Amino acid sequence: MKTYRKELWFNVQARRGFVNITRDVDECLKESGIQDGLALVSAMHITASVFINDNESGLHQDYEKWLEKLAPHQPIHQYRHNDTGEDNADAHLKRQVMGREVVVAITDGKLDFGPWEQIFYGEFDGLRRKRVLVKIIGE
Amino acid sequence: MKTYRKELWFNVQARRGFVNITRDVDECLKESGIQDGLALVSAMHITASVFINDNESGLHQDYEKWLEKLAPHQPIHQYRHNDTGEDNADAHLKRQVMGREVVVAITDGKLDFGPWEQIFYGEFDGLRRKRVLVKIIGE
Amino acid sequence: MKTYRKELWFNVQARRGFVNITRDVDECLKESGIQDGLALVSAMHITASVFINDNESGLHQDYEKWLEKLAPHQPIHQYRHNDTGEDNADAHLKRQVMGREVVVAITDGKLDFGPWEQIFYGEFDGLRRKRVLVKIIGE
Repeated sequence: MKTYRKELWFNVQARRGFVNITRDVDECLKESGIQDGLALVSAMHITASVFINDNESGLHQDYEKWLEKLAPHQPIHQYRHNDTGEDNADAHLKRQVMGREVVVAITDGKLDFGPWEQIFYGEFDGLRRKRVLVKIIGE
Repeated sequence: MKTYRKELWFNVQARRGFVNITRDVDECLKESGIQDGLALVSAMHITASVFINDNESGLHQDYEKWLEKLAPHQPIHQYRHNDTGEDNADAHLKRQVMGREVVVAITDGKLDFGPWEQIFYGEFDGLRRKRVLVKIIGE
Repeated sequence: MKTYRKELWFNVQARRGFVNITRDVDECLKESGIQDGLALVSAMHITASVFINDNESGLHQDYEKWLEKLAPHQPIHQYRHNDTGEDNADAHLKRQVMGREVVVAITDGKLDFGPWEQIFYGEFDGLRRKRVLVKIIGE
């Protein structure tokens, strides 16, 4: 069994945003030399997500509006977490809807994807450097 | 390490529906000969889900009603994704709530499940052929 | 390839609650002797979750309030699942928002975590003994 590990760093220049990281994960896979196995791609911060969906900007606007409706940032003081001096309780909620991680099959040295699958980093409390972990196991 | 890969195809005859795929995944497992490891079962389309929950039709009605409340299909034009000519933005949202994938432990050649765990394919934009990926690694 | 399996049992003394299980999973990892691989931690019951987020009690209050808003327990009879004699349909919905499982990278014999990641058992239909499965594969 071979294993591979890499951290990807991001600094989203807004409170919230989506970054397509498919190419970064693909480069990790090539670097790993692993042909067959499983890749875990996970947000190392608890106010961010990694998820798989469509690379379409209209949809990303829909996610932004929808998540703000489900778990609004304002008013800050509706959340007990923000009594600690934080203002990011909503980010911890949004991240649960979008998920922490994806597990991707690796087959013939490629991300084994359907036609439109792309991997995104979802930032819900940005304006600082944050990390994604890529861990691949296989042969 | 052994690996196994199979695609399962579905054609749900409605916009939305839930299909119990536990038996299909179990057949994959038997075919693989793998006794101990992990199975990834994931939707290859981004308007569908794979999730684990109860095989109870009342609950599936509850999911349908609840998801329509959280992310309604109509009106179509509330979503920017649908400006592209699509009408399935809601399906991309619903899929995030229900999830893309499950990872299941394999022990003694069986899906290592609690008493009520069953695997479902959740379709949110049906009336066409779509795929689920089963990838198993282990020994 | 080495594999390890253990069940963790919980009996939350309320309908709903969150239990930090990071230390339990860490003990499993030490017991396994696995240095490098992947760990699956999953709820074996379909009215409970395993998720990774912050060990902060204010945030847990926020989750409780937010999940009750998204999928209220009362009135019981709004859910078709409860026509079966159950009263836990809301628990099946809440569990989808918070997730069934997490997959954690294992590196150098440790849970490969960002600075604040902690693993929680989320109970949505408690007052009885329920299980979490820990399955680790690697070397």
